[in-house]
Amino acid sequence: MEFLGELKNIGKERALINSAVSLLVWDQRTYMPEAAYEYRADAVGYLSELSFRKFVSSEMDKLLEKMEQESSKNHLSEYEEKVLRMTKYEYNIIKSLPPELLKEITIESSKTEELWSKVKNEGDFNQIKKQLGKIIELSKEIAERIGYKDNPYDALISRYEPGMTYKKLKEVMESLKTDLIPFIQEIDDSRVKTSRDLLKGRFERKALENMCKELLETIGYDFNAGRLDETVHPFTIDISHNDTRVLTKFVTDDIGPTVYSTLHEGGHALYDQGLPEDYLWTVLHDGASYGIHESQSRMMENNIGRNRFFSKYLLNILKKHFPHFNDVDHSSFYKAINHVEPSLIRIEADELTYNIHIIVRTEIEEALINSRIKVSELPELWNEKFKKYLGLFPSNDTEGILQDVHWYAGMFGYFPSYMLGNLYAAQLFNFLQHDIEDLDSLLEKGKLEKIVSWLRKNVHSKGKTIFPDELIKEVTDEELKPSYFINYVKTKFSKIYEIH
Amino acid sequence: MEFLGELKNIGKERALINSAVSLLVWDQRTYMPEAAYEYRADAVGYLSELSFRKFVSSEMDKLLEKMEQESSKNHLSEYEEKVLRMTKYEYNIIKSLPPELLKEITIESSKTEELWSKVKNEGDFNQIKKQLGKIIELSKEIAERIGYKDNPYDALISRYEPGMTYKKLKEVMESLKTDLIPFIQEIDDSRVKTSRDLLKGRFERKALENMCKELLETIGYDFNAGRLDETVHPFTIDISHNDTRVLTKFVTDDIGPTVYSTLHEGGHALYDQGLPEDYLWTVLHDGASYGIHESQSRMMENNIGRNRFFSKYLLNILKKHFPHFNDVDHSSFYKAINHVEPSLIRIEADELTYNIHIIVRTEIEEALINSRIKVSELPELWNEKFKKYLGLFPSNDTEGILQDVHWYAGMFGYFPSYMLGNLYAAQLFNFLQHDIEDLDSLLEKGKLEKIVSWLRKNVHSKGKTIFPDELIKEVTDEELKPSYFINYVKTKFSKIYEIH
Repeated sequence: MEFLGELKNIGKERALINSAVSLLVWDQRTYMPEAAYEYRADAVGYLSELSFRKFVSSEMDKLLEKMEQESSKNHLSEYEEKVLRMTKYEYNIIKSLPPELLKEITIESSKTEELWSKVKNEGDFNQIKKQLGKIIELSKEIAERIGYKDNPYDALISRYEPGMTYKKLKEVMESLKTDLIPFIQEIDDSRVKTSRDLLKGRFERKALENMCKELLETIGYDFNAGRLDETVHPFTIDISHNDTRVLTKFVTDDIGPTVYSTLHEGGHALYDQGLPEDYLWTVLHDGASYGIHESQSRMMENNIGRNRFFSKYLLNILKKHFPHFNDVDHSSFYKAINHVEPSLIRIEADELTYNIHIIVRTEIEEALINSRIKVSELPELWNEKFKKYLGLFPSNDTEGILQDVHWYAGMFGYFPSYMLGNLYAAQLFNFLQHDIEDLDSLLEKGKLEKIVSWLRKNVHSKGKTIFPDELIKEVTDEELKPSYFINYVKTKFSKIYEIH
Repeated sequence: MEFLGELKNIGKERALINSAVSLLVWDQRTYMPEAAYEYRADAVGYLSELSFRKFVSSEMDKLLEKMEQESSKNHLSEYEEKVLRMTKYEYNIIKSLPPELLKEITIESSKTEELWSKVKNEGDFNQIKKQLGKIIELSKEIAERIGYKDNPYDALISRYEPGMTYKKLKEVMESLKTDLIPFIQEIDDSRVKTSRDLLKGRFERKALENMCKELLETIGYDFNAGRLDETVHPFTIDISHNDTRVLTKFVTDDIGPTVYSTLHEGGHALYDQGLPEDYLWTVLHDGASYGIHESQSRMMENNIGRNRFFSKYLLNILKKHFPHFNDVDHSSFYKAINHVEPSLIRIEADELTYNIHIIVRTEIEEALINSRIKVSELPELWNEKFKKYLGLFPSNDTEGILQDVHWYAGMFGYFPSYMLGNLYAAQLFNFLQHDIEDLDSLLEKGKLEKIVSWLRKNVHSKGKTIFPDELIKEVTDEELKPSYFINYVKTKFSKIYEIH
C-alpha cells in the first residue's frame, strides 16, 4: 500500500495540473477573449510539460521497479496489480520516446496543422506535401521507438487502442467491405427513397440550447457535475472528477447536427461521469481506450438516438421546442434521421457508410507507415478508393486528402478508433438488448435509467482497469466480431429500404 | 541582462501557473458545476503552492544576491534596478514568513471564513470569537516576522500598501473625521431632501447585461482582451496579459448596484489592461498597490460615474436600455445617484460616508494588533464608534462586527486600501481636471479617450515600477493629502444639498 500511496501522490499532482490544462483548453474554445491566444498557448504548453515531467521521472522509474519486485513476490493486492499493469503500459510507451523526438513532432505537427487550416480550403495538396512527409517520417520513428511485433503501424495503434493490431483490423475491414459495399448498392437501387428535408428549417439558438439540455437530461447526464456550452467543433472534456463538460454546436438551419452531436458528446460524458471515484489519482480513472470511449458516444448517437422506438420520444422533444415539427409523423421522421447516402465527407456520413470512410483512411495510413506508398501518390489513392468503395470521386483535394486534420496533426493510428467504436457499440448493444427485456418500451418512453445502469456496470465502472479486448470479452463472452454491426445495420436498413 | 533573463524565466513560470490559478478561480465563481467544488479547491491549492515554490527558492536567493552585487557596482540598467528593487520588496516579505506559519494561517483563515459564513446571519459573534482570536494572534506573529519600525500594524499594511504607516493614516483619518463628521450632520440638517427611489424598478437581466457592456465600452474597456460575466460578489481578475475579465452582478430591482459595480470593476480592469507588455514576467507587471488600484476603480465609479456632466450621458444610456427612465430629468437623477445617507453597511455606503466605515475598521484593527483591546470587546467597540461617527447604532452583530469577511479571512491591514483609493482618486482627479481643459464637455458626451490616455500615461503605464507614495508625488507633485478629497466632496455635496 505504501507504493500505491506514492504512485497516487504523483498521480494526484499530475491530475491537478491536467485539470488546469483542461480548463484552459475548454475556456479557449468557449469564452476566452481573442487577444489572449498567444499567452494561452504558452500556459497550456508550459503546464502540459510540467504534467509530463511529474509522470516521467527517475522517481517514477524506481517506484515502478519496486512495485514490480513486490508483484513478482505476490505481495500486491488485486487493485495494486491493476494499477501497476496500466501505469506500466502507459509509462513504457511514453518512456520509449526520447524527449527531443516528442518535442520535434509537437513543433512540426503544430506547424503542419496551421498550414493545413490555410491550405485546406484552397484544395492544393502540393503546398503541404513536403510538410506531411516530415510528419510521416517522424511517425515512423515513433513506431520504431515504441516497438512492435509484426507491423510498425501496430505501435501507432497501441497509443489509442491497446492490444489492437493491423492484422485484426484488416480482417474486420475485409468483412465489413464484403458485406457493406453490396448492401449500400442495394439501398441505392431500392425503390424506397428517403430524404433529410424535414429536418431542415429555422431553429432559434436559445430553443436549441433548451432542447439539448433536455436531451442530455434524458440520457442521464448529470448537470450538477457538468455543463453544456457552445463551440465550433463539438467535444467533451473532463476538467476533474465531478466536472465533465459537453460542448456542442447549435446549427440554426438543420436540426440533425445539433441533436446528434449532443447525443454523441453526451455518450462520452456519461462514460466520464461514471468513472469510479475510487480510481482517482491513478491511470485507472480513464476510459478503457479511444475505441471504447467512442462506442459510448456512437451507441448514444446511433443505436439509441436513431432507434425506431427512441425516435418517437425524440420527435416529441423536438415538437415541444419547435412547433413546426407538430405536422411531422414518426415514420417520416425515422426515415429522415436514418437517410443513407454515400458521401465524400466523413463527418457528414450516415450510420451505414461511416465505416467505409474509416477503412479508406486506415488502409492508407498503414501503407504509408510501411512505406508502400509515397506522399505524392496520396490524393490519387484516396480518390480511387472512394470511387471503388462508395462509387464517388472527389472533385478536389478539399473533399479528398485534405479533409481531416488528423494526419497533419500527427495523429497516425487514431482513425481506427472511430470504426472500432461503431463495432463495439453494436456488439455491446446486442447484449444490452438481451439483458433489458422491456427495452423498446423504455426507449419509447425516454426512460434510459436501466440502459445507463447497464453501461455503468458493464463499461463505465471498469474505468481503465482492463484492455479493450478484455472488456469486450468480459461483457459479451466473445472477441470483437464485425458481424454484430453488420447484422444490426442490415436488419435495420433492410426494413427501412424494404430490401428482402 | 543575463540575470534579468534568469529572473524573467522564473517569473514566466510563476505567471503561467498563476494564469491557470486565476482561470480556475474565475470559473469557480461563474460556470463551474457545483459538485466540482472539492476538486477545484484541491487544484487551486496545489497550483498556488507550486507558484509559490517557483518564486521562493534557493535559486532565487542566489540570483537576487548576484543582482545586488551587480547593482552595488553600478552594473545594472535603470530597468534592471527597478525590477530588482520591487522583486526584493516582495521577496523579503514572503521570505520573512516561515512556511509553517503561512500554512497555519491559510488553514485557520479558511476554517474561520467558513465558520463566519455560517455565523454571520445568526448574528452571534460569540460563536466565532475564539477562532478570530487565533487569527489575530497569527497576524501579530506575521507582523513580528515581517518587521517594522514603530508599529507592528505597519508590517501588515506593507503587504497591501508599501510605504504606508499607521502614523500617516492616523493623521489622514483625524483630518477626515474633523471635516466630514460635521459636514455629514449639515447634510442631514439640510432642507434639501434626496432619495434613491427613482433608481428602483424592474430591470431585465439581458438588458442589464447590454447596458453594462455599453458602459464598459464607454470607459474604454477592451472586450477583445477581456469579457464580462455575472457573479455574486463583483470582482475583476487578470487571467493573463490581454485577458482581464470583469465580473459584475445584475440586480433586477435597483439600477444602482449594477451600474456602479460595473463602473468600479471597469476601473480596475482598465488599469490591468493598461499594464505595459514590456513588464511581462516581472513583478512590475502589476498595479502599484492595492490603494492605487482602488483609486482607479473609485475614480470610475465616483469621480466620473457620479459626476454632474457624465451623469447626463449615463442617464441617456439608461433611457436607451430601460424606457421607463424616459420621464426622468437629469437633475433628479443626479441627486438620486448622489443621495447621502449614513448607514451601517459599508458596501452600501455613499461616496461621502464610505471613508467613515473604513476609519472605524482601521482604528479597531490597529488597536487589536497592538493588544490594546480584547476580542471580546469588539462588538461593543464597533457599535460605539458607529454611534460616535455616524450617529447610528447596529441592532445586531450581523450589521456590526460580523459584517465583513476580511478579518475572519486573515486580511488585517487591507481595509485602509479602500480609503486610500478614495483619497488618491480625488487627488489624481484634481490634476486630471487641470490637464484636460474640455473635461466637462467630454464627460457630458461620454468621450473618455482623453481621460483614459491621462490615466494610461500617469498611472497604468508605470505598473509596479514605483511605490504608491512615489507615484502620487510624481503625478501631483505633492504627498497624499486628504484635503483633495475633503474639498471635492464638500464642493460637490454643498451644491446638491444647498449648504453655504
